Amino acid sequence: MDEKTRSDAIHRLKSAAGHINGIIKMLEDDRYCIDVIKQIQATQTALSRVSESILDSHLRTCVTTAIQDSDADERERMLTEITEVFRYTHKS
Amino acid sequence: MDEKTRSDAIHRLKSAAGHINGIIKMLEDDRYCIDVIKQIQATQTALSRVSESILDSHLRTCVTTAIQDSDADERERMLTEITEVFRYTHKS
Amino acid sequence: MDEKTRSDAIHRLKSAAGHINGIIKMLEDDRYCIDVIKQIQATQTALSRVSESILDSHLRTCVTTAIQDSDADERERMLTEITEVFRYTHKS
Amino acid sequence: MDEKTRSDAIHRLKSAAGHINGIIKMLEDDRYCIDVIKQIQATQTALSRVSESILDSHLRTCVTTAIQDSDADERERMLTEITEVFRYTHKS
Repeated sequence: MDEKTRSDAIHRLKSAAGHINGIIKMLEDDRYCIDVIKQIQATQTALSRVSESILDSHLRTCVTTAIQDSDADERERMLTEITEVFRYTHKS
Repeated sequence: MDEKTRSDAIHRLKSAAGHINGIIKMLEDDRYCIDVIKQIQATQTALSRVSESILDSHLRTCVTTAIQDSDADERERMLTEITEVFRYTHKS
Repeated sequence: MDEKTRSDAIHRLKSAAGHINGIIKMLEDDRYCIDVIKQIQATQTALSRVSESILDSHLRTCVTTAIQDSDADERERMLTEITEVFRYTHKS
Repeated sequence: MDEKTRSDAIHRLKSAAGHINGIIKMLEDDRYCIDVIKQIQATQTALSRVSESILDSHLRTCVTTAIQDSDADERERMLTEITEVFRYTHKS
């Protein structure tokens, strides 16, 4: 992963953790259920953006290098991982 | 929302926030991209479980009461909210 | 389910089936992979819209009636079903 | 896309179209809303499996070739497409 993606991901994850702490406060204040659920969904969307950014960087760095180096096993492993990550997005 | 659901949700959200802090640490340690993405996806699944639990409680308490009280406007508003929350799960 | 929702759902599902036949034609014509995937995703979104519409109608008719009739078992069963459907959207 | 993936995808899409026709029949027979929704969700899952299979083949053929050929523009375009497809799975 390139440095910009990494520092950006750290920044967004810190923001997501802060967001979750805000949701905990909402629950402690007995706020309306649907408002809590909407905040949880917003956090999930923010996390999806982080995953997409990391995947994009991964494809452009590690995967590109692995394919160019033509190590068949390593390439195979990496492509299988991409498919697995893609499959998971249909499950979570 | 009933008390058990609320305290359980707070507990799970604290765990999710801790999980995200762990992912930040993984990024700082320059861990492998795909491992980071998998941990983000696991956090999203944990957050989905919290939403589902809150929705379930909401249906059994607030929504049931609103429908039994037969206030048409309030009932309408609540049912629209449920559909919105459902629609969002297809988008995030 | 009310009549309008039902006829609308039938119409949209016929359109989705036609869309899928178009995708089969794309594959037979050896069209570009990503274009095929995008058409499959568009079909899935169209199907989500149908589910949401049916759920919305279900809440306003069957579920509202069940809750007003105050048959505790029937109400319980219906609310559990809603949560299950919601959970599934996080899995498919 | 390799030939096996293509014929397998055509087979599965025909099955999905048949499944949707079955759901239309359920609606015409005025079957229970939640049963209809569950069948729609099952169709969506089946479509996800087709997308994953095509993406997997695409990565192993077109993308691998593009990266090995080292045409930077073509590579860039293809990797951006993968990220777009991944992003869409978080939206539909």
